[in-house]
Amino acid sequence: MAFGWIDEQADVRRRAGLGRTLRARAADSPLLDLASNDYLGLARHPEVVEGAVAAARTWGGGATGSRLVTGTTELHGELERELAEFCGAEAALVFSSGYAANLAAVTALAPHGSLIVSDAGNHASLIDGCRLARGTVQVVGHADPEAARKALGTHAGPAVLVSDTVFSVDGDAAPLAALAAACREHGAGLLVDDAHGLGVLGAGGRGAAHAAGLAGADDVVVTATLSKSFGSQGGVVLGPARVVDHLVNAARTFIFDTGLAPAAVGAALAALRLLRREPHRAARARAVARDLHTRLIAAGLDAVRPDAAVVSVRAPSPQTAVRWAADCRAAGLAVGCFRPPSVPDGVSRLRLTARADLSEAQIERAVRVIGDTRP
Amino acid sequence: MAFGWIDEQADVRRRAGLGRTLRARAADSPLLDLASNDYLGLARHPEVVEGAVAAARTWGGGATGSRLVTGTTELHGELERELAEFCGAEAALVFSSGYAANLAAVTALAPHGSLIVSDAGNHASLIDGCRLARGTVQVVGHADPEAARKALGTHAGPAVLVSDTVFSVDGDAAPLAALAAACREHGAGLLVDDAHGLGVLGAGGRGAAHAAGLAGADDVVVTATLSKSFGSQGGVVLGPARVVDHLVNAARTFIFDTGLAPAAVGAALAALRLLRREPHRAARARAVARDLHTRLIAAGLDAVRPDAAVVSVRAPSPQTAVRWAADCRAAGLAVGCFRPPSVPDGVSRLRLTARADLSEAQIERAVRVIGDTRP
Repeated sequence: MAFGWIDEQADVRRRAGLGRTLRARAADSPLLDLASNDYLGLARHPEVVEGAVAAARTWGGGATGSRLVTGTTELHGELERELAEFCGAEAALVFSSGYAANLAAVTALAPHGSLIVSDAGNHASLIDGCRLARGTVQVVGHADPEAARKALGTHAGPAVLVSDTVFSVDGDAAPLAALAAACREHGAGLLVDDAHGLGVLGAGGRGAAHAAGLAGADDVVVTATLSKSFGSQGGVVLGPARVVDHLVNAARTFIFDTGLAPAAVGAALAALRLLRREPHRAARARAVARDLHTRLIAAGLDAVRPDAAVVSVRAPSPQTAVRWAADCRAAGLAVGCFRPPSVPDGVSRLRLTARADLSEAQIERAVRVIGDTRP
Repeated sequence: MAFGWIDEQADVRRRAGLGRTLRARAADSPLLDLASNDYLGLARHPEVVEGAVAAARTWGGGATGSRLVTGTTELHGELERELAEFCGAEAALVFSSGYAANLAAVTALAPHGSLIVSDAGNHASLIDGCRLARGTVQVVGHADPEAARKALGTHAGPAVLVSDTVFSVDGDAAPLAALAAACREHGAGLLVDDAHGLGVLGAGGRGAAHAAGLAGADDVVVTATLSKSFGSQGGVVLGPARVVDHLVNAARTFIFDTGLAPAAVGAALAALRLLRREPHRAARARAVARDLHTRLIAAGLDAVRPDAAVVSVRAPSPQTAVRWAADCRAAGLAVGCFRPPSVPDGVSRLRLTARADLSEAQIERAVRVIGDTRP
């Protein structure tokens, strides 16, 4: 049978305890959420919801076409201008997802004959971007600017260094200043994915590149999602106007994709305006993460010190990680559970996310449950 | 400078008249729209808009995480069940875009050692899926089942034939029955992208695979978008439950992407229910396309006979196509303008889309403007 070979793979997964199934959540789920990427607690904020509502009522349910045909509304332009201004970039371009934004940025900035230097811990979307790009890819060790510098030194033509700013699995930050210095030494571009930094790091949540003094530089391009701190959907590329213009003309996931739905544009715009008005939310998300980490360590758990809002707790094996997360859930706490093949180092862990709107009592409760259910 | 090489490419584009810029549309644009992919005229239908509104109010602005973590709501499950039932498939899986759905389906169904046979006219997202997949790719002539049959005959392991059902540029349909026969002769799977067929072709808009008697077959997988006939955003993979389960476990653009925003899920669900209640909308879109074609031919224009809702009109050159589309716009008519590199054959054209809600007077007006502005 045509797809019979799939059953063999499913058997292997089942035997290894690595099978995944979808679990639908209810709108009124009583679970305490430390699993989502809703870092600022804005996904269900009334202003964000009403941003989505007003946009759908004004512009309709969908963008109706490619951004180059009918899919760019004035609202898309408004969001792009305000995102660029907030992050200190010359220009911004919004995509239907962060995945699409990363595919676009990597492929468009790494033409035939160029070199891409890519951190070994990068997100799947950056890796797929590298695979799709026409340039030659060299993977370097995780968070190793010296290795990046050496790799860049081997190449004469255009080159770009690609890295997450905050790595999703362990929540650790990239050494941005050192990476930027390595790039500048060799005239290479720096492309960083700030999906887990925007809204959390930098002054008022302006992101990791802004915090590192790289915002607005003519050799730096930042990508980010609108689906994490901004509680919506979509992705964005921020950078020099020439780069954004180039993406409009060359990036296949921009040209051949329907534009981001108006409701998502409206929700993201409302979240951005709310964050500008209440900049303390960013610092609060970081403080919650540090508090969470301190209490986990005090409880004797193997938690990794967070650089942003992700706190990772290591588990002995995929099976124990799955049982641990299930026991947390049974006790009313939703946590992420990352296992192979979603972890670059093969180490399974619980992945906790701090939210700016978590109370001290909720943080205490979360740590108690995680401690009580430890394998 | 790091990205200086971009300027050279921009100069080349400008000199060739192939530069693209974004033009934002207003919510109350007076233009007659024959450029969007809103085939059933549902993007701004009150029921679709209220579907988005209710979903945003109930579930928030975003899905908050990967579908495997917090990103699956009960609403996602509802949409997937109803889409599968409507299209006659065993199961369905919803993605943040059709692009992501195609990347997922192609990569997950073409493992190392497999063969992918791909139509030369396929959409960019299928082509990128082929590039990302671990299998070996063989591109065959456009809509050529005999070439596909031969290519499949050269390979012993798992194989999959990949094709659009309706090709976006010219609106022509793939020979699905012959392609399916070729696949079955060799035990290969058939993967078809019904982005431009769903909602337009088949009984009540059930799509091209349903119309060809392929719905529910254990060797057929169908992808589609929710951003065209359904007036929303997102993509879907429809097929055997084993294939959907495999995608949940193996497809990177599913695992590592934030789930589709609730508002988009709600809008698509509302559109689907509306289409079930008013199945004549599908036939009406096809009738409008035929009417448009007949009148264009009568006006002496080089229009391609439509198999679905896309009507293509050839232009002598990229430059004349751009001017033609601009002249249409000045006369109050929005039409698509496809030029290299968005056209596989290098032929520039106006791309018109029929909408089920176009009146006869609007069709007449559109043809008159296109005729009056011809190069």
